Amino acid sequence: MMPQDIHPIAFVGAGPGDPDLLTVKAVNCLMWADVVLHDRLVPAEILALAPQAQLISVGKEGFGPSVTQDEINRLLVETARTGARTVRLKGGDPAVYARLAEEVDAAEEAGLSYHVVPGITAASAATAALGESLTKRGRNAALRLLTGHDMKGFAEQDWKALARPGEVAAIYMGKRAARFIQGRLMMHGADPATPVTLVENASRADQRIVPTTLSHLYADLSEAELNGPAITLYGLAPRAAQAAAETFIEEAL
Amino acid sequence: MMPQDIHPIAFVGAGPGDPDLLTVKAVNCLMWADVVLHDRLVPAEILALAPQAQLISVGKEGFGPSVTQDEINRLLVETARTGARTVRLKGGDPAVYARLAEEVDAAEEAGLSYHVVPGITAASAATAALGESLTKRGRNAALRLLTGHDMKGFAEQDWKALARPGEVAAIYMGKRAARFIQGRLMMHGADPATPVTLVENASRADQRIVPTTLSHLYADLSEAELNGPAITLYGLAPRAAQAAAETFIEEAL
Ligand SMILES: C[S@@+](CC[C@H](N)C(=O)[O-])C[C@H]1O[C@@H](n2cnc3c(N)ncnc32)[C@H](O)[C@@H]1O
Ligand SMILES: C[S@@+](CC[C@H](N)C(=O)[O-])C[C@H]1O[C@@H](n2cnc3c(N)ncnc32)[C@H](O)[C@@H]1O
Repeated sequence: MMPQDIHPIAFVGAGPGDPDLLTVKAVNCLMWADVVLHDRLVPAEILALAPQAQLISVGKEGFGPSVTQDEINRLLVETARTGARTVRLKGGDPAVYARLAEEVDAAEEAGLSYHVVPGITAASAATAALGESLTKRGRNAALRLLTGHDMKGFAEQDWKALARPGEVAAIYMGKRAARFIQGRLMMHGADPATPVTLVENASRADQRIVPTTLSHLYADLSEAELNGPAITLYGLAPRAAQAAAETFIEEAL
Repeated sequence: MMPQDIHPIAFVGAGPGDPDLLTVKAVNCLMWADVVLHDRLVPAEILALAPQAQLISVGKEGFGPSVTQDEINRLLVETARTGARTVRLKGGDPAVYARLAEEVDAAEEAGLSYHVVPGITAASAATAALGESLTKRGRNAALRLLTGHDMKGFAEQDWKALARPGEVAAIYMGKRAARFIQGRLMMHGADPATPVTLVENASRADQRIVPTTLSHLYADLSEAELNGPAITLYGLAPRAAQAAAETFIEEAL
């Protein structure tokens, strides 16, 4: 018996966008669903894997009509209560900056059981695109996944610790906070030449890699005009050979 | 054209063990491979997805005959140089505590191109099993992936920062360091009642969840006698309803 035969709700990670980065389990859940409540950024190719299901976009990002978190929670509970097999499809991993806890709270309060299917988070996909490793012996024994802003505005972090040589952090939702992050790190003594790489639309056909350094982060980000979701990889640079290989792929296609 | 048609080497994440947590891309790479160099812990069900390939275990963990990193690097290069389509299959995500950088260095030095296929890392799988979220608004705006030991022994971390209420960290290879970690955090003022959950064999049929607190970590870990790979989730407890649901699944099966 599969978990989805028991629980009315599946919280499922859609990964970073490339349908081939879905897990087999996520594909199975999409085939099982009666209703898919999905983030706005989940691409059409992934939604096409649930042709039998009713698709409801509950996207909050961007400037379109927005659905509040309370509305999402209510919709989730109402849908599952009708007996519909409900998939709540979230970009990346549902446990990483995706407000999973609030939706799980709503399900539990309504007496609805659920299971969670992990997904490839943006940090993993973006780093893979650089041919890099998130951790490295002798460089970093800790890896941080950070958010650019929290409930209070730009998120404060352990800047002093992050400013030390060799630290690595993947910063989600970091575009608007770029100038703030740059300032804080420089103020705490980070090397201005620390590599920083922005990866927009990681794993998608329109993926863009913008390598820069801490001191040029804000200027290069502004110039690049990234409109899609982008992750800021602090302390990582693309590997030269990999960058060359990517160009080769584009030419070969 | 697929990346694997261009690059002789694919570094592929095998995820935490459940074959259904492989990505579609990882499954494709396994079908493509002539040779799979795999970590010892990758389960037979996953290796069975590459029946056409020669399988070579290069496991270093545990107490069996061990292959040094230099030997792995050499084997990787030698294999790919014969023209064999070479998959280097690593547990979890290849970019997380998996010595990817060293193997990529070896490939680059040999002039061999490669691509990286990200995988579900143990932290995501273990947290999904708890029904929990790794981040939560108002609780943590940073998430740490740590290692229990580094090249110098037990790894030193920002204990003071970690000791603050609401911090969350997933500690890889943390079993032997448990007493050290507990001592350091208590010394830096962490609440002895901070939840800590050990997850052994996350996502596998023999998965075990051991919920404890910081002050009981070492005692409960010793008593639990975990022999498989285990991750220490600091600051997270299993959600009650989820724990109940898991029991329900076991009974239903
Ligand atoms: C609300 S968070 C959700 C994160 C998601 N749950 C995950 O695990 O990747 C949205 C942020 O994730 C990052 N992100 C998501 N998908 C991405 C992609 N394909 N490429 C780059 N960054 C991405 C961006 O930083 C974006 O602002
Ligand atoms: C050498 S590290 C490799 C980590 C792997 N690359 C990943 O991303 O999960 C090995 C450690 O990962 C953790 N680990 C790997 N697989 C696991 C699983 N299925 N359940 C729990 N922990 C696991 C354990 O802490 C183990 O000591």
